[in-house]
Amino acid sequence: MTSNIKIQETLQSIQNLNDEKMQEAREYVNSLTKPIGSLGKLEELAIQLAGITNQVFPEVTPPGIIVFAADHGISEMGVSAYPKEVTTQMVYNFLNGGAAINVFAKQINAFLKIVDIGVAEDINHNELINKKVKYGTNNYAHENAMTEEDAKQALIAGMDMAQQMIEEGAKCIIVGEMGIGNTATASAIVSVITGCSVEEVVGLGTGISDEARNKKVSIISKALSERKPNRKDAIDILTKVGGLEIAGMTGAIIKAAEQRVPVILDGFISTAAALLAVVLEEKVNDYLTAGHMSKEQGHIHALAYLHKSPLLELDLRLGEGTGAALAFPLLETATRMMKEMATFQSAGITTESESSKI
Amino acid sequence: MTSNIKIQETLQSIQNLNDEKMQEAREYVNSLTKPIGSLGKLEELAIQLAGITNQVFPEVTPPGIIVFAADHGISEMGVSAYPKEVTTQMVYNFLNGGAAINVFAKQINAFLKIVDIGVAEDINHNELINKKVKYGTNNYAHENAMTEEDAKQALIAGMDMAQQMIEEGAKCIIVGEMGIGNTATASAIVSVITGCSVEEVVGLGTGISDEARNKKVSIISKALSERKPNRKDAIDILTKVGGLEIAGMTGAIIKAAEQRVPVILDGFISTAAALLAVVLEEKVNDYLTAGHMSKEQGHIHALAYLHKSPLLELDLRLGEGTGAALAFPLLETATRMMKEMATFQSAGITTESESSKI
Repeated sequence: MTSNIKIQETLQSIQNLNDEKMQEAREYVNSLTKPIGSLGKLEELAIQLAGITNQVFPEVTPPGIIVFAADHGISEMGVSAYPKEVTTQMVYNFLNGGAAINVFAKQINAFLKIVDIGVAEDINHNELINKKVKYGTNNYAHENAMTEEDAKQALIAGMDMAQQMIEEGAKCIIVGEMGIGNTATASAIVSVITGCSVEEVVGLGTGISDEARNKKVSIISKALSERKPNRKDAIDILTKVGGLEIAGMTGAIIKAAEQRVPVILDGFISTAAALLAVVLEEKVNDYLTAGHMSKEQGHIHALAYLHKSPLLELDLRLGEGTGAALAFPLLETATRMMKEMATFQSAGITTESESSKI
Repeated sequence: MTSNIKIQETLQSIQNLNDEKMQEAREYVNSLTKPIGSLGKLEELAIQLAGITNQVFPEVTPPGIIVFAADHGISEMGVSAYPKEVTTQMVYNFLNGGAAINVFAKQINAFLKIVDIGVAEDINHNELINKKVKYGTNNYAHENAMTEEDAKQALIAGMDMAQQMIEEGAKCIIVGEMGIGNTATASAIVSVITGCSVEEVVGLGTGISDEARNKKVSIISKALSERKPNRKDAIDILTKVGGLEIAGMTGAIIKAAEQRVPVILDGFISTAAALLAVVLEEKVNDYLTAGHMSKEQGHIHALAYLHKSPLLELDLRLGEGTGAALAFPLLETATRMMKEMATFQSAGITTESESSKI
C-alpha cells in the first residue's frame, strides 16, 4: 500500500514539457551564426532540453549513470551465450573499474553507481549499492518472475537511485544494466507492450546461434501464453515476465522525468524499461532521448513504439549504458551551441533573408 | 617544378597500414571484458587506428582542426543561398570564437587554426593564418578556376598546415572549410571522380530552393562539358573546376596520411577533398574515417566511392569541420577502450567458450 502511494505520487507529479521555453529556444537557435536547421538533430535536442529543464540555456553536465544488475531465472533455460555467474563476475568488474561503462563514464566525467537490485549471489564491495529485492527472478517459463510487491520495491529502488543521483548533482540520467538472460526478458516485455510477435523482437543477444535463438523464441512465446501479462499494466508485466534491473531502470526513468531531468536511453533492455515507464505514464516519453540503435533486432520496434530516432548507430550490443554514454557528448554540444555560439546580429553577418542573390 | 617535387615526395612516402599491428589489436579487442564484437564500430576504429599509427594503444588526443577558407568565382552565378561576402564575415566569426566549430573544438580540446587560402577580401586578424594563393577562384562557368601552379600551391599550403599541426602535437587531423559556393564546386569534383551525374550529386547546399537547385545543376553540367577535367588527374580537376580551400584540405589529408596520423572527414566538401587525395594516391583512403553523413545528397555517393560508412548521421549540413569534431570523441573512446578496459583474464570472468550452456 505504501509502495503504491509512493509510485502513484511520482507518476502524478510528472508534467508536460514547457512549450514556451521550447519556442524561445527554437527562435534563439535560428538566430545563431549558421544556416537555419543546419545543425540538424543538435537543434532538436537543444529545443527538447529547454522544454525538459524549463531553461533555454540548461546544463547537462555532469551526467549520472546508474547500472542496475540482476539475475534472471529464465537464464537456466539456456537463452544466453553466457552462464549466469557472469552477472556477478561482471558486477565485480564494474566495481573494480574494468568494464566498458567504467571507461566510457570516465571519458564524459559521469557519476557512476553500480546497484545490486537482484543478483543471485551476495556481492561484497565497498562501492556496491545494495538494493537487492530478491536473489534473481523466478523462471517465468514455470511461474511468475516475482511478486507484485517485489516489482514495486524494485521500481522504488530505481526511483530512489535517480533521486539520489540528482541530489548529488547529476543533470542528465543514463540507465544501464547487467543481467545474463535479460535480452530474453526485454524481448518478452517489448513483445507484450508493442504487440510485435516474439519472433520479430528476439535477436541474437550478446551472441547466441540461430538454433539457440529459435529455442529462445519458443520459450518466450510459451511463457507469454501461460503468464498472460496485461499490456496496459506495467506492474503486471514486471510481475509475470519482468526483471529486477529492468524495473529499477523504469523507476529511475519516471523519477528523472518527475524531476525534469533528461534521460538518455541505452540499448534494447533500457528501452524495454522505458516502454514500461511510458505505460505507467505517457508524459515520460518527452523526457527521453534514444542514445543509439542496438544491433539487437527488437530495438527498432521498441524505439518505433516511442517514436524515437536514435542519435547513434554503431552496431553496439553490449548494454551497461555504453551506447547512452557515447551519445552524451551530443547533448553536451547542444547546450554549448546555445550558450557559446554568436548570433547573426552579434557577429554582424548577412542573413539569408537579407541576401537578394536567389 | 619545385612544387611538383614536394607533392610527389609526399605521395611516394605514404605507406600501407601496418597489418601486423592491426592483427595484434584485433586479438586484444577480443580479450576485453565484453562479448566478441559487441562494441561494433568502436572495435573497427581501434583496429584501424593501430594500423595507422603502428601502435596497438595509440593516442588521438589532442586533435587538430584546420579550417580552410576561400571564395568561389562560381558564386556570382547565384549557386548559394548566401552572398559571397559571408565567407569573409564567417572567417571573422571563426577568429572571434563565435562559430559552431569554435564551440565544438573547445568541447574536444582541439587545436583550431583558421587559414585564408583564397578569400576574395583581405582579412586582418592576429589569429588568422595567411596562406592566400589567390583572391578567390575564377568563375569556372567561363574559364579555368585557377592555374595549375595555383592548385599545387594550395595543395602545398594544406600539406604545410597539417605538418605544422602535427609538429605542434595534434594526434588526429580534422579538415573543415568555409567558402560560399563550395557545395557547387564539390559537386563538380564528386561528379567528375565518381562518374555520378551532376543531377545525382547536387543538393540544396546550405538552403537554396528547388528552382535554384535546378539552375545549379545546369551551370555545373555546362561547366564540366566545357572544361572537361580528367577524372584521373586531381591537379587537372582542381585547376579546371576546383576550389582553393578544397585543394588545401586535400593537401592536409595527404600530409596526415604520410605522417601516419588519422584523419576525420567532415561533410560533403571535405569528402570531395578526400576523393582528390585518393586520386593522387589510393593508399590515403586507409587513413580516413568518415565523421558523419551530411544532408547534402551528393555525400552518400562520395562516401560510397571511398567505401566508407560514417560514424554519425545527425542531419548536419554546415561544414566548418563540425561533423568531424562531433565524431572525434568516438575515436577517443576507441583508444580508451584499448588502454583502460580489463581483459577476461585480468578480471577472472568466464568466457563464452568456457560455457557449456549453449
